[in-house]
Amino acid sequence: MKKNRFGERLAAFRERLAERKLDAAVVFGQANVNGLTGVDCDNACLLVSAGGSRADAVFYTDFRYVPAVERTAPWVKVGDIRKLLGEKPLKVRGFSFGRVGYESDISKARFDRLRKVFPGARFVDIAKDIRELRAVKTPWEIECLRAAERLNDEIWRDARKSFKAGMTEKDMARVIRHLMIERGDGEAFATIVCVGRNAAECHHVPDDTVWNGREPVLVDMGVKLDGYCSDMTRNIVPPRQSRLYRKVYDLVLAANELGIRSVRPGITGGQLDGIVRRFLRKNGFGKEFGHSLGHGVGMEIHEAPAAAKKVETVLRPGMSVTIEPGVYLVGSLGVRIEDLVVVTETGCEVLSHSEK
Amino acid sequence: MKKNRFGERLAAFRERLAERKLDAAVVFGQANVNGLTGVDCDNACLLVSAGGSRADAVFYTDFRYVPAVERTAPWVKVGDIRKLLGEKPLKVRGFSFGRVGYESDISKARFDRLRKVFPGARFVDIAKDIRELRAVKTPWEIECLRAAERLNDEIWRDARKSFKAGMTEKDMARVIRHLMIERGDGEAFATIVCVGRNAAECHHVPDDTVWNGREPVLVDMGVKLDGYCSDMTRNIVPPRQSRLYRKVYDLVLAANELGIRSVRPGITGGQLDGIVRRFLRKNGFGKEFGHSLGHGVGMEIHEAPAAAKKVETVLRPGMSVTIEPGVYLVGSLGVRIEDLVVVTETGCEVLSHSEK
Repeated sequence: MKKNRFGERLAAFRERLAERKLDAAVVFGQANVNGLTGVDCDNACLLVSAGGSRADAVFYTDFRYVPAVERTAPWVKVGDIRKLLGEKPLKVRGFSFGRVGYESDISKARFDRLRKVFPGARFVDIAKDIRELRAVKTPWEIECLRAAERLNDEIWRDARKSFKAGMTEKDMARVIRHLMIERGDGEAFATIVCVGRNAAECHHVPDDTVWNGREPVLVDMGVKLDGYCSDMTRNIVPPRQSRLYRKVYDLVLAANELGIRSVRPGITGGQLDGIVRRFLRKNGFGKEFGHSLGHGVGMEIHEAPAAAKKVETVLRPGMSVTIEPGVYLVGSLGVRIEDLVVVTETGCEVLSHSEK
Repeated sequence: MKKNRFGERLAAFRERLAERKLDAAVVFGQANVNGLTGVDCDNACLLVSAGGSRADAVFYTDFRYVPAVERTAPWVKVGDIRKLLGEKPLKVRGFSFGRVGYESDISKARFDRLRKVFPGARFVDIAKDIRELRAVKTPWEIECLRAAERLNDEIWRDARKSFKAGMTEKDMARVIRHLMIERGDGEAFATIVCVGRNAAECHHVPDDTVWNGREPVLVDMGVKLDGYCSDMTRNIVPPRQSRLYRKVYDLVLAANELGIRSVRPGITGGQLDGIVRRFLRKNGFGKEFGHSLGHGVGMEIHEAPAAAKKVETVLRPGMSVTIEPGVYLVGSLGVRIEDLVVVTETGCEVLSHSEK
């Protein structure tokens, strides 16, 4: 039975539960529930049985969301979420609860409740399993990411045209936000605009610093579109810059391009991060690259796989990942260049097309 | 030593820890850390010692936020947050970790880490203590809430003027969002606009439904300003409405006014909810009021105190709470009227001033 656009992922999830010898799983994460059912709901728990069992899935929520569930995922049973948040043992026809998968990123308080709802159950952390399943985007999801990045490119192009000397960081962020609301579904995260040395704080919050039109400006932005995020960082580099800025910019750009060239199926997130990190270190700016190379992007702005030290996740076709090396010299300057790519059979497709 | 605008709350928190015989507490919640230090940071843990001990507080974060912490809370020591997310036991001069307070809404995974960082510690849930401390707003915070609600009123007034027959719910939501970005810091939550019967889904997401100018429109909106939220629901009621709509509207308005009149120090959140709920039930619409009466508003859109069934939190001067009764007749109509009030010594001050 073809369910909806996430039917195959749900089937894969149920198989995974069976492989891990679980009877069932409770899934609370909003994007996890969405990525298994297509229903975006901020008060939900999806109860899923392992593959092979007769029962399938129950969507627990409150009355506010029942119409949306019935419309989008008519094949699930609907239940009252209070049954999973109370203290009474849960019984559901067709389900057994000997070994129950759960996400370890649910709250400690919620976990304590689950122990009452499933008395005697053995709980097994499956957060990583779901993250891995969601990390591989479906063709439909990749199309959504492409569209979101394309829109982000357009917004950057048009925003940039209206930036003028005398505007503050807040003014420039506002221009971007307006365009994101007008053409998309708003910001995927709080837009970052850093004038001059503010770029050395790599998560600087736009403030009243005025752009004199001669300093560089770093902009990290992503628009949300149809439930999917985009993410890109670019720098406005006016013609006259210090030799140091030029050197750092060229180096970060080379690091970004090296990262993109290095993406291919089979490499781990840690290896990818390491290639770029070693390159920057060899060129004298290892310590000044204080964050990790990148992260997956999808329904959420930060998803698996991480491209960071020690990460052993193997990149596979369909995974998205940002490539965003940066060099930050406190009190002086900062440069970060970020693209979103999707892993293909032979390398990757770069989804952001703005000039670097 | 007067620290900053939250110095008194931090002092009260440390006393509370001492009362509960705790040695220290680890605070991860972003708004909790902010409400104790004035630093808004999405990767932080505040380690606080109990009152009476020599040491005070350590602000653990990553290098990105160190400048902001040093600027805003120069009196805290700064540490590397990885020390609290790793597996090595933590040692800090002046601190002991026999009984450690923690927030039970941190993730299960994070809690498991804490057990390694504080081996042998007895962990005590203090989420409620912090919620209670933050529920009572300081005079400065109340001024922030006033300003946010005032701006929300202005935005509603101006948005409403530009609503025209032929616009979709999305169009109207966009008008509001633009104004919120232009004049404030954007939405405190996703703006709700419901045309006609869509208002019966009380958390309806704005869609392409077109307003014909004759149906009622329900709008639930809040702008964020200087770190604080606002929250208000109003309904556009064109002159000709069904007798049923009129009846429901007048009843919900009476319920809203009854709720506001009933707010005073000493009443519990549960009692307040009960007064309004009984009134609606007596008038034939008890079942159609499916959510709770209200919630606190501050740095977060949903804070303590809840005005809901069984809530025993006693309202005290300085607490904020929404009064938002609603009646939803599926497939037909919905009305909700919401104001934000702050509890005073004798009753409450209504912060929203838009016409009802």
